[in-house]
Amino acid sequence: MITINENFLKLRAGYLFPEISRRIRNFKAANPDAKIISLGIGDVTQPLAPAVIEAMKKAVDQMGRAKTFRGYDEDGIGYEFLRKAIIENDFNARRVEFEKDEIFVSDGAKCDTGNIQEIFGLGNTVAVTDPVYPVYVDTNVMAGRTGPAGRRGRYDGIVYMPCTAENDFVPALPAEPVDLIYLCYPNNPTGAVATKEQLKKWVDYARQNRSIILFDAAYEAFITDPAIPHSIYEVEGAKDVAIEFRSFSKTAGFTGVRCAFTVVPKQLKAWTGDGRAVEVNPIWNRRHRTKFNGVSYITQAGAAAVYTAQGKEQTRRIIGIYMANAALIRNSLTKLGYEVYGGVNAPYIWLKTPDNLSSWDFFDRLLAKANIVGTPGAGFGPSGEGYLRLTAFGRPDDVKEAMKRFAAV
Amino acid sequence: MITINENFLKLRAGYLFPEISRRIRNFKAANPDAKIISLGIGDVTQPLAPAVIEAMKKAVDQMGRAKTFRGYDEDGIGYEFLRKAIIENDFNARRVEFEKDEIFVSDGAKCDTGNIQEIFGLGNTVAVTDPVYPVYVDTNVMAGRTGPAGRRGRYDGIVYMPCTAENDFVPALPAEPVDLIYLCYPNNPTGAVATKEQLKKWVDYARQNRSIILFDAAYEAFITDPAIPHSIYEVEGAKDVAIEFRSFSKTAGFTGVRCAFTVVPKQLKAWTGDGRAVEVNPIWNRRHRTKFNGVSYITQAGAAAVYTAQGKEQTRRIIGIYMANAALIRNSLTKLGYEVYGGVNAPYIWLKTPDNLSSWDFFDRLLAKANIVGTPGAGFGPSGEGYLRLTAFGRPDDVKEAMKRFAAV
Repeated sequence: MITINENFLKLRAGYLFPEISRRIRNFKAANPDAKIISLGIGDVTQPLAPAVIEAMKKAVDQMGRAKTFRGYDEDGIGYEFLRKAIIENDFNARRVEFEKDEIFVSDGAKCDTGNIQEIFGLGNTVAVTDPVYPVYVDTNVMAGRTGPAGRRGRYDGIVYMPCTAENDFVPALPAEPVDLIYLCYPNNPTGAVATKEQLKKWVDYARQNRSIILFDAAYEAFITDPAIPHSIYEVEGAKDVAIEFRSFSKTAGFTGVRCAFTVVPKQLKAWTGDGRAVEVNPIWNRRHRTKFNGVSYITQAGAAAVYTAQGKEQTRRIIGIYMANAALIRNSLTKLGYEVYGGVNAPYIWLKTPDNLSSWDFFDRLLAKANIVGTPGAGFGPSGEGYLRLTAFGRPDDVKEAMKRFAAV
Repeated sequence: MITINENFLKLRAGYLFPEISRRIRNFKAANPDAKIISLGIGDVTQPLAPAVIEAMKKAVDQMGRAKTFRGYDEDGIGYEFLRKAIIENDFNARRVEFEKDEIFVSDGAKCDTGNIQEIFGLGNTVAVTDPVYPVYVDTNVMAGRTGPAGRRGRYDGIVYMPCTAENDFVPALPAEPVDLIYLCYPNNPTGAVATKEQLKKWVDYARQNRSIILFDAAYEAFITDPAIPHSIYEVEGAKDVAIEFRSFSKTAGFTGVRCAFTVVPKQLKAWTGDGRAVEVNPIWNRRHRTKFNGVSYITQAGAAAVYTAQGKEQTRRIIGIYMANAALIRNSLTKLGYEVYGGVNAPYIWLKTPDNLSSWDFFDRLLAKANIVGTPGAGFGPSGEGYLRLTAFGRPDDVKEAMKRFAAV
């Protein structure tokens, strides 16, 4: 008899975004004329940069001619032209060195942050921040590293590290030993960043405890403060203990094109149950090449164009549009007396609900009174209760209009 | 202390294609002037169909304009325009009905056949054919469903079903009960097909034993015999017990573009340990949407063009080129006295080695004497020993030249 993986049955049914969609649907049915503005879901709205478009068109042309046609990405980990551009621009420019087989090109940071746990033992203790991007948790639930969900939506066996205004949304080191630590800075959903000193504490912790840090840097392109590290590898010793995830989704508007990469340093080690050190890089390589088959050549050609002089200038301009949105949201809401976090080095604004409203109550009030959609902070974990996430990825006119409506609420 | 998933350490180091590459490299180093023709790796060589190129260019253009830009594939399981075209053309045309949420668009059948096992319990008994596409086995090893590899390369805990000339390369029903059955027809590597009667036996077996069949139909477009089913769902009752995998990789030359789909019927069930039935479709949906983030819009637009009148005619012509290669290989080698299988309804030719040579010895002889590369059958499992796989995906001129060289060996 075929049995299901019963860990899937532990997952809470009401996933955040479907629930938001349901409430919007109901509201629209009752208010067919309302013009809803979404500052909720984290999708981009600006078109791709012209340099990317041009490179992808050229690549499509190449795929239509016998002489330039390309089949499988033979290395399975991305074309060398792209991995070379990544190393030079994202790392060498920040005095970090990598070899080309330490970079794994993939179709998304969501996929990679979800898949990475597969290569580690089921007995490891997982630590996540609270609030947290749900994929980190859900994929560990599916794999069987947790017990059932408790009353507040926390799973038994996972160590949740609260991130609140009190600790600047960067967690304290855990009291109990943890093995696999998910950190995301600039943070989704809080918009917080981690300083070099804060990251160093975590790197030192991981080195002392033989833990591994899974560092999600998908939003690094939005950092404006030159003192904030873009990569965890800017911290001395991080190569021994950290895997980093990057993405073109928000950097270059690739949410509908699908390209990302993951860095697994060769010196990174994990251990067997009897204490033998194992290099993690070849294990991830084996996983990647067995359960994945490379990224579209057209997509990779587009991603490489992000690193050209034109591509850099154009994507910087697009990020500038989003960061102007973020500044407008942040300033408008601060003026209105709201308690506002994020939005300076990140495309996310983390808004304290007024009048001690719950996240969902404030969500409902905003939808009803201003026809604005945010994302309830409680959907990211218990410590997100009393917050609402707004994103800077909207069209500038919509964001302006939304801020007018906020003022009128 | 972070522990590695030690199941990865069970995987045999010498993966087939790296070993082939190594031998080619050595041969080239010693024979720098040799002109090697590869009939080995299963990659395509014909450029994409003009209809696909045109659709992808249009999609790239759309991504460059604000009004037509597309971000995340919101459904997460593929655009409706593509799922609709799939259902109408691949299924309705063969009198099989599906709803749109029974089709999951992905970036490859390799990924899907590798990932699908995650949603089933670790205690299930897995059955594979021998020879077999290595991904089915390796992903189960990684997940922990097997013991270590034995002397002949078989893993403890997996049921291997020999496929030889004696059973027309379609396995007999297993003597012991099995839960998860991987079948691939048209078959990689043997080029064999399964008749409706043969598939019906398997469907009946699965229904009686509450097993699930994972049916890899990635090569269905190469079927020329009208009596051979293209989909397992052409067999009565298969929707209750089968998941089917399809791909645009070989059908439309998408190996470098990445698009595939998986069918999970809503009536398909698996069970909890205490005997409760669970619908598999929503579980796969949850897995797909949590660990994957959709296929490039540009790719999906290209895939949909395969189903237009022009796209169909053009891809049929390309498949015709490959099948002419297959016929040439088959006929030439038969004339030369070789024992040849496949190549009629499949792009693979399964060649018995002459003089009772081992697969690798024949590989080495062909490389040395004719500078031709095949794939040693032993690389696909012990029952592949004594065979060599040739593929029909080469350029016609190369295939002609290769056949001349065969004649001279």
